[in-house]
Amino acid sequence: MATISNLQRARAAYQPKLPKALQGPVKAVEGAATQSVGNQDEIKALFPNTYGMPVVEFAAGEAKEVPQFNVGIILSGGQAPGGHNVISGLYDGVKSLNRENKLYGFLMGPGGLVDHKYIEFTDELIDSYRNTGGFDIIGSGRTKLEKTEQFEKGIEILRELGIKALVIIGGDDSNTNACVLAEYYAAKKYGVQVIGCPKTIDGDLKNAQIETSFGFDTACKTYSELIGNIERDCNSARKYWHFIKLMGRSASHIALECALQTQPNICLISEEVEAKAQSLDDIVNYIAGVVAERASRGLNFGTVLVPEGLIEFVPAIKKLIAELNEVLTDPATGESRVFASAEEQITFVKSSILPENLAVLESLPADVARQLCLDRDPHGNVQVSLIETEKLLSKMVASRLAAWKKEGKYAGKFSAQHHFFGYEGRCAAPSNYDADYCYSLGFNASRLIANGKTGYMSVIRNTTAPASEWIAGGVPITMMMNMERRNGAMKPVIRKALVELDGAPFKYFASKRDEWARETAYVYPGPIQYWGPSEVCDQTTKTLQLEHE
Amino acid sequence: MATISNLQRARAAYQPKLPKALQGPVKAVEGAATQSVGNQDEIKALFPNTYGMPVVEFAAGEAKEVPQFNVGIILSGGQAPGGHNVISGLYDGVKSLNRENKLYGFLMGPGGLVDHKYIEFTDELIDSYRNTGGFDIIGSGRTKLEKTEQFEKGIEILRELGIKALVIIGGDDSNTNACVLAEYYAAKKYGVQVIGCPKTIDGDLKNAQIETSFGFDTACKTYSELIGNIERDCNSARKYWHFIKLMGRSASHIALECALQTQPNICLISEEVEAKAQSLDDIVNYIAGVVAERASRGLNFGTVLVPEGLIEFVPAIKKLIAELNEVLTDPATGESRVFASAEEQITFVKSSILPENLAVLESLPADVARQLCLDRDPHGNVQVSLIETEKLLSKMVASRLAAWKKEGKYAGKFSAQHHFFGYEGRCAAPSNYDADYCYSLGFNASRLIANGKTGYMSVIRNTTAPASEWIAGGVPITMMMNMERRNGAMKPVIRKALVELDGAPFKYFASKRDEWARETAYVYPGPIQYWGPSEVCDQTTKTLQLEHE
Repeated sequence: MATISNLQRARAAYQPKLPKALQGPVKAVEGAATQSVGNQDEIKALFPNTYGMPVVEFAAGEAKEVPQFNVGIILSGGQAPGGHNVISGLYDGVKSLNRENKLYGFLMGPGGLVDHKYIEFTDELIDSYRNTGGFDIIGSGRTKLEKTEQFEKGIEILRELGIKALVIIGGDDSNTNACVLAEYYAAKKYGVQVIGCPKTIDGDLKNAQIETSFGFDTACKTYSELIGNIERDCNSARKYWHFIKLMGRSASHIALECALQTQPNICLISEEVEAKAQSLDDIVNYIAGVVAERASRGLNFGTVLVPEGLIEFVPAIKKLIAELNEVLTDPATGESRVFASAEEQITFVKSSILPENLAVLESLPADVARQLCLDRDPHGNVQVSLIETEKLLSKMVASRLAAWKKEGKYAGKFSAQHHFFGYEGRCAAPSNYDADYCYSLGFNASRLIANGKTGYMSVIRNTTAPASEWIAGGVPITMMMNMERRNGAMKPVIRKALVELDGAPFKYFASKRDEWARETAYVYPGPIQYWGPSEVCDQTTKTLQLEHE
Repeated sequence: MATISNLQRARAAYQPKLPKALQGPVKAVEGAATQSVGNQDEIKALFPNTYGMPVVEFAAGEAKEVPQFNVGIILSGGQAPGGHNVISGLYDGVKSLNRENKLYGFLMGPGGLVDHKYIEFTDELIDSYRNTGGFDIIGSGRTKLEKTEQFEKGIEILRELGIKALVIIGGDDSNTNACVLAEYYAAKKYGVQVIGCPKTIDGDLKNAQIETSFGFDTACKTYSELIGNIERDCNSARKYWHFIKLMGRSASHIALECALQTQPNICLISEEVEAKAQSLDDIVNYIAGVVAERASRGLNFGTVLVPEGLIEFVPAIKKLIAELNEVLTDPATGESRVFASAEEQITFVKSSILPENLAVLESLPADVARQLCLDRDPHGNVQVSLIETEKLLSKMVASRLAAWKKEGKYAGKFSAQHHFFGYEGRCAAPSNYDADYCYSLGFNASRLIANGKTGYMSVIRNTTAPASEWIAGGVPITMMMNMERRNGAMKPVIRKALVELDGAPFKYFASKRDEWARETAYVYPGPIQYWGPSEVCDQTTKTLQLEHE
């Protein structure tokens, strides 16, 4: 018998809330035909069977008998809090329609479908994972479902198990692929429906139809707990600048949400850096300026939030990296060039790149420049994710301040600590919000399946209201698509949602940040609470609140 | 008006629990005369006025009028959750004796006493810090109170403010200094009492009289939340080994407690490494062995906890560092030697140290060896704390596994992620345990003061029982002392409590670790809860539970 924590045991008893419409029999209310957000003609041509379908909203309906059916589920990509609740919601939903219905889980991501690795869920298994974090119930993986052979291997096992519908839990790419799969099975008349579920802590899968991706709420609250603790330490010891890098891939949603929750002195937003075409020098000047201003009032401490993707949004660095990738590839073979030594490789790079890119390279701290010239991923590309941006920035700020000190413009002390938060929050136990939201998404998917839908994303809206008032339904995935260049070819994809500089969350942040830079206006959110006052346990993210105001 | 989080607002209303004896008027029940734990003659000679005093326990007494008095408080050293509760407990305790009593806080640590920087606490100020983390109410600092001039500067302001007693919240060193100060003021008949309070997240201030230092509970629970989240991620993605370094200075109490809470595959214990005279090579072999065994069953993932102080407990590294410190100091001046270049310094080091130490140096990864030869602290010593032990170990394990792969002894995949947790937990909002314990320690200090005690530590015992059954009293600080060599001279100090290899917590861990290494037996404690079932909110540390069983 496995040891489980007291919290996990107590939390297993939590019954997630459902929208009112899903609490009894439903009927699907269909809207008008839909269009994709861009490139309508191309998307329509690529998805003749799943394009233009109506948005669906569930309302109370009449009970009717549903023939027995089986469902499969896949967890795709990085972990996000609430995945197990999507599964338990789907399980309960499927079983509520017909106790004989079965739910299968494919193991370790989309690869499990292709390789025919699966389990059948039982009451006992589901019960031991209710309201828990992680994807460990069936595991996840990053295999991309995009090839006909994979689809054909998939249909073999789907038929063998009598699976009528497949639910794919994933981010923008996985949901794009879910739609391609839905289209393929529809075109082939294989009779298998495909439903997507919006998952990612990064918060970049959202649009007019999807309010938020699941896991964003819990991950941001977990990071904010830690940032708040560090801020309190910072404000007690009054001697360090803490540079905190936060996961989130390209988008800065996590950094922005954490800033709204904790009010640090500085939060960089990659999308703004790009929009303003800022250089690394501009960013360093900005941070050093805040440090110097605070130091002039005896405040030699502060907190800086840095989004993971920052470095790639600095146009000059982006160009440098592009050229590095180019010169380090042998045009004859398309493979990475091979050098006798690291020093030879660095000399080659420096003599090969454009003077403007060389200048950028040489403006970087020596070890970072070295790393950029040397470390490659298996595809021969510069490993941008290995760059410790938080350390890079603090080093450059320290140099800038040293220069200012010589000029008599700065007389403070600067000492930095570094942190990177990502894995700490991806598998946290879901907040009440994510527990309810995910359970509803899963339960709702069972209703989309029972109503014969395919190529739809399970959607729950109005989530800043109490759960009973949430709106449940489905949106055709094609509606969220446009054409974008990927690996040199135009592909239909769900548009990734970056931080909008004219959106309410960023605008609120921008209106406050000078005050937060100057003052010590830290807020300490503390750990996620599951019991206790509702204003502590049931708040949505600040991002959602501001977007709905 | 400062923004405060909903949790902080709701938590402010929490009324910490007190031991039954402190809920009304008390009387001090005194035991027999005490002895120091070692070097009785020397300690007695050094502390003629504060040696041999009896242990005090409070029992219900009769209400009597207490003349008005004022108290000062100092936060010394690193932050620990619950400091504000010690202050609010002391404030409430002092005010309950006489509403006219005043409590003063000296700012930014012991330096505030010497520099005469202080504030007077008010109801409003105290109320806004109840049950919060951090030391920001008055700040903390690392100035050591050990010189006569400091004591004399201190008495000036203490007299000016009419302060009858000073409470010093700190770790072993600060409490040692509190006792020296108590002795000095007693010898001089200055009429100022000094009371200590046992603080440190590291858990190394404990002994037969002190069950635990405050903050250890909350810090360990916060780190365990994060470790559990990482373990869940690890077990979901099944592709990384996570190396997690944990604060705690020399002692491995934090690592051990977190291991007991989360059941990782590996937890290193510095005290065991030293006792077994293990080499870095032994440690690397142990970790690589566990990795290889799991890999042979397809489990290419795991979690390793590394105590902060590990590297200094490896005898061979300890010797190397000692020799590096020696050869890099110029014997003529006692200052650090100066070199023309880094390369020259490295060459000098390599040609100067003993062959056995050179062999150890050369067994380290190149960048770590380089750092050891080059980076010095302001006193010219090797900066051991800068060594990223978690990365050092994972690099060496990777090399070992690569060698084993060539020998056909290993066929898995090894990919590592690194984490270091410290600042994330030092200022967390106190758990119910720490909130109650700290409030009781502070309240209890007011009773020690009212009873005329000096040179005592405020002590609350029996804390695995419900708070009402806790035992409150005081222990002479001299009782915890012995003589130890510090900076080349014998000094009276409180003996630092390292992990005892024959203690119940370590023995339980040792009995389980092989199973935890092999199986994936992770436990996910989740975030600290303040409301909800008692078994979730009110548990003590596993260390305390095992010690009391």
